[in-house]
Parts: sequence; structure tokens; C-alpha cells
Amino acid sequence: MTTIQDIADKLGISKGTVSKALNDAPDISETLQKQILETAVELGYTRLRRYKKTGKRLCILVQKDNIEYEEPHQFAYDIIMGFRQMAEPAGYKVDVVPIDVQIQRKSPYDVFMLQNDYAGAFLLGFSLGEPWMKSFRSSRTPTVLYDNQIIGNSSTAYVGIDNNEGMDLAVAYLKKLGHTKIGYLSSALGSHIMQVRHRAFFQAMHNHGLKTSPSYAGCSYYLTECMEKHLPRLLDMGMTAVICCQDTFANAAINHCKELGYQVPRDISIIGFDDIPLSAYTSPPLTTIRQDRTELGKSGYYALNSLMNQVSIGTVLLHAELIVRKSTEKAPQSLDGSGRSDRTDSPAEP
Amino acid sequence: MTTIQDIADKLGISKGTVSKALNDAPDISETLQKQILETAVELGYTRLRRYKKTGKRLCILVQKDNIEYEEPHQFAYDIIMGFRQMAEPAGYKVDVVPIDVQIQRKSPYDVFMLQNDYAGAFLLGFSLGEPWMKSFRSSRTPTVLYDNQIIGNSSTAYVGIDNNEGMDLAVAYLKKLGHTKIGYLSSALGSHIMQVRHRAFFQAMHNHGLKTSPSYAGCSYYLTECMEKHLPRLLDMGMTAVICCQDTFANAAINHCKELGYQVPRDISIIGFDDIPLSAYTSPPLTTIRQDRTELGKSGYYALNSLMNQVSIGTVLLHAELIVRKSTEKAPQSLDGSGRSDRTDSPAEP
Repeated sequence: MTTIQDIADKLGISKGTVSKALNDAPDISETLQKQILETAVELGYTRLRRYKKTGKRLCILVQKDNIEYEEPHQFAYDIIMGFRQMAEPAGYKVDVVPIDVQIQRKSPYDVFMLQNDYAGAFLLGFSLGEPWMKSFRSSRTPTVLYDNQIIGNSSTAYVGIDNNEGMDLAVAYLKKLGHTKIGYLSSALGSHIMQVRHRAFFQAMHNHGLKTSPSYAGCSYYLTECMEKHLPRLLDMGMTAVICCQDTFANAAINHCKELGYQVPRDISIIGFDDIPLSAYTSPPLTTIRQDRTELGKSGYYALNSLMNQVSIGTVLLHAELIVRKSTEKAPQSLDGSGRSDRTDSPAEP
Repeated sequence: MTTIQDIADKLGISKGTVSKALNDAPDISETLQKQILETAVELGYTRLRRYKKTGKRLCILVQKDNIEYEEPHQFAYDIIMGFRQMAEPAGYKVDVVPIDVQIQRKSPYDVFMLQNDYAGAFLLGFSLGEPWMKSFRSSRTPTVLYDNQIIGNSSTAYVGIDNNEGMDLAVAYLKKLGHTKIGYLSSALGSHIMQVRHRAFFQAMHNHGLKTSPSYAGCSYYLTECMEKHLPRLLDMGMTAVICCQDTFANAAINHCKELGYQVPRDISIIGFDDIPLSAYTSPPLTTIRQDRTELGKSGYYALNSLMNQVSIGTVLLHAELIVRKSTEKAPQSLDGSGRSDRTDSPAEP
């Protein structure tokens, strides 16, 4: 086990100086402290020893450019509540820390965690290109990522809903309503979860015996491009239903369909993903796949607590749930048949 | 909520008779009891009310034709221990019940659970064709399946290791040793987990930029056929390493390679899956992918307890771990080059 002496020897400084850096004493320069912390991380200095002295602290790191969390109607609010509901009664102090790319560039992840004396972290909203994402592959800090999976690092875990199941529920439901031409609208595939949902859409269509080609999906970083380019294209292809990667896209699609002269759900059914609080109040209210956000937060704590106790949980997925509202109904009988396939095993519901 | 009166009305019998059947009284015929229990299940009679009276009982149902569990060296022994280590201190009585196809044919799953007054079950060793597998799709009894996934039923959960990660670790390690022609030997794809590992093999080869075709895998229900037909075929194709679906196959492959005049690991590297207790004592000792069986049992309890508390956990996967022993080494330099590809980015380790 690495000691303070090892760090001191490596840098040729005194134990007292190392100790000051590790304990965040005021009388040490920022540059020297950074160097000491980086050396400590490099030598595998175990943080566990310190936690025993200073009490147990956890953090929820929120990529504030990607995810909203401060108010009850925002997506990550309930996730954070769920985590705290479990962690605080268990004796942990939980800090919610907004993170951006600048902070990630300033300190390596393990140094940040050591410096702030956190025993473990629950991460929300990190996309694949973020500076810290590479560190998670080799970090030894117990780290749970919501909607991100790090393969091959037993100090990390992935928590989310089962998106394959969610997409399967959406496609099965639409098929039962007689829809066979179903499109998919997505934001760019720059996050783990967008990649997972994109693959899950094609897999679900395949599982239910429905035809697809890559052109059945439209993906763009810009919501505008999705609405102005891909949505009209899918409508022109004769789609009678569109599944959207998230509720905000579905809400925009409902509104843009109206502008294009299509009535939702009479002419086209729309399904979202996530069941954000807004979804009950779109016009019409949105049929969607629910993520139980409070339970996601609780599962995040369960996974983190397991990792901190050397139980190497890798993945925890919650069941997805289909919430049927008013943005879906049975498939329209199109005059030229272009909106319907010639399948006979997909009767519309009575 | 369904009451005893509802069941009595449906069958045109007295409440007292229904009560006798539900409480397993001796003075009621087996046929009538079965009919009453089936009606109770059909009407959705909730078992929860009874549990409050009789104490909390869980069961571990072991498909005894597929999985061994009674002695410490057998595969499922530690899984059962792990489950009990969590469940019994929490106040549950846990029965371990061997199940075969006859028992499954005799009573529907929900009737079996109601009759025996179990609040939930942890299932080990069920393959896809078993009579009860269909019931799990619609059962409302909290049920956790080891190595089996039921899509779309929020009363069930799947617990196992991350086989994609395990296969990735195996292929990455072999590639680092200079192997590029890697084969896969598997038992028949009649179980969920064999299907998952089979797909994971091809995915891992693809992820690491290694060539494959369907002929790179040999699958057979009969171990003999795998050894006599597929193993020689893979060797003839110039494979320098073979990954096996489970350790027993790997052990047989090591022995059969010797009979065919190949030395393990000099001529051919062999990797198993599971790390059963035997694996440290094969000759040479087997490199394999470990499942932490005690932790799998503990995770099984965690998932079941969540389902019983209306938290709809769907999947819990533990990290896989590569255990390096003596059945693998760097790829042989074959004379005609057939055992090596022309890739230059896969140097053997020094």
C-alpha cells in the first residue's frame, strides 16, 4: 500500500508537505499541491485510509451543459433525490457538483476526487467526447455512470433503464395498433444512450418482423435539422408512426407535423422516450416510455455502495414502462396502401 | 383486490372450502384444491395478504437436471450461499427446492408458488424450452432468474455476469499475445446464456478488428461432437487459440488437443468461461473468465427484494474477470504463416 513517505520520496520533499497537500492546508502553493496529488494518484495512494478520518463523502457530478437538475420539473432532479434518499440515511454526506469541460481539463478525474476527498461519485449527463471519459477506463475510484457504460473497469458501474425493452414495448404497441411503417427520429449519436436506442430501434423492428432500412431513421445534432429535413422525409416515405429518441424531440415533432398539415394521432402516431414531466401536457399528451427517475437514483446509490464494498456490480437496468396517452392511435387506412404493409398478422385493435 | 369470497363465487363453493385450499388443510381433495388454487391465480388473488399472516418465505428453485448445487465444489453451491447470506438475516426463510420437468408439468408456476406460500423465487438453471419459461412472461410473482432474461415483465429480473465484457476481456488478452485466428466452441444454443456468449464472441472479434466467419464457431449439444468434429476442424483452419463456452468444454478441449498431437498452450491456447473450482486443477491449469458466484447470489437477493418492494429492477450484471493461468501463451510462429494473420498491430508480449 502506498504511504505518504512513498509520495515524499518520489518527489524528494518532506512528509509534512505531502500531508499538507493531501489535507488541503492553506500554506502550500496550488502548483505544488497539484503535483503532489497527481503523484499520489499515479502511485495508487489509497483514499480509503483518509475517508476513515474525515467521514464519508460522496458526490453527484452533473455535466451541467447536458442535463438540467435544479428544479423539480427538470429531468435529473428526481434522480438526485432518489440517490440522496438512500445515501444520507446510510451516513454519507452528498455534494451535488456541477461540472463542465473546463473543470475536466483543469484536473484529472482521480485528482479531482482525491483533492475533494470523495469516496465515490455518481455521474449524470456525460457524453462520449468529454475529457474525463477516457479516465474512467482506468480510474480506481468507485464511479457509477447514469446512461454510460465503461467496459472492463471493475471500479465503474452503469445504471439506466433497459432501452431494448423500452423500444420493444413501443414497437409492439404500434404493431398492435396496425402500424407497420415506423420511423425513428434521434439526436446525434454522440452519447452512449443515443447509440443504444438507435440500435434498439432496428432490433425491435426486426424482432417484430417489420421491415426497415437505414433510411427509416433520421439523426441530427440539430433539432431543427431533424424537424425540417428528416421528419418530412419520413412522412413522405409513408410512415404512419414515428418513435423519437426523447420527449423533447417528440414534442417538437407533434408541433411540426401540425405545421406540415398532419394531425397527430389521426394521420401519424408519435411516441417519445423518458416521460419527462412536460409529456403529460403536450398537445395531444404524449405516449412515451417511462424512466422511473427516483428509482434510477436509488439504484445509482446501490451500485456505488456495492463498488465501495468491493462488490463489482457492472450494470443495473430498470424495467422500462410504456405510458399510453393521446399521441398514438390505430394506423390510418391510406388510400394507396402506402401507409400499410400487406401483412395480415397485424390487425388494428377494435 | 380479489377476495376469498370472489373465488368462492366463481366456483360456486363456500368460503370455508376456499380457505381450506389456500391454507393447505388436510381434509380437502387434491383435485379440488388444485382447481381452487388455479382459480385464485386466474382471478389475481394477491398472495401478499397471506404472507403477512404466515411469515415471509422465499425459494431458490434449482433445475436439477441442468445445474449441480449440493456440494461445495459444484457450480451453484456458492450462488445459493450468497443468496442465503443476504436473505436470512433480513428475516426470510429460504427453501432450496429441486425442480424438474415433471414438477413443471404438474402445476403452473404461479399455482406452485401460491400453494407453497412463497413470496418470491430465485431460479437457477432453467433453459429456454422448459414448461415454466412461458409462464414467466405473464406471472405476477416476483421472480429473479439467473442467466435468463424475460423481456417486458416488470415482475421478473435477470441476474448474471456481463458476458459481453467477459468475451471482450478474453479476445483482448489473446490479441495482446499475438493471436489473430481465434475459434469458439460451444454447447447447443438452447439456453439464453449460450446465445448471449455466442453473439458476444463475434462482437468481441469485430470490436478488436479480427476476422471471423460463422465457421469460426462450432456448436453442438453433444460434447463428443464438439471435440471429435468441431475442435479438429478449428485446428485444421489454423486457429492458434480457442475460447470455450464453459470450463468443462475447455477441460475436454485441452485433453482432446493432446490426443490430436497438439500441446496446450505451446501449439494452441485455450480459454474457458465460469472459473468453476475444477479450473485451477486442469492440466495445464485453465485461463478463464470468472463469475463471482457468491456475489451473484447476493445480487439475486437484492433484485428479488427490489421486485417485492415494487422497485422494478430488470437486470443486474456483475463485472467479468479474466483469470490468467497456464493454458494460454503467445501465439506460435507457424511455418507457413497460416496460424498468423498479416496484421502488424498485434505484437506478441515480450
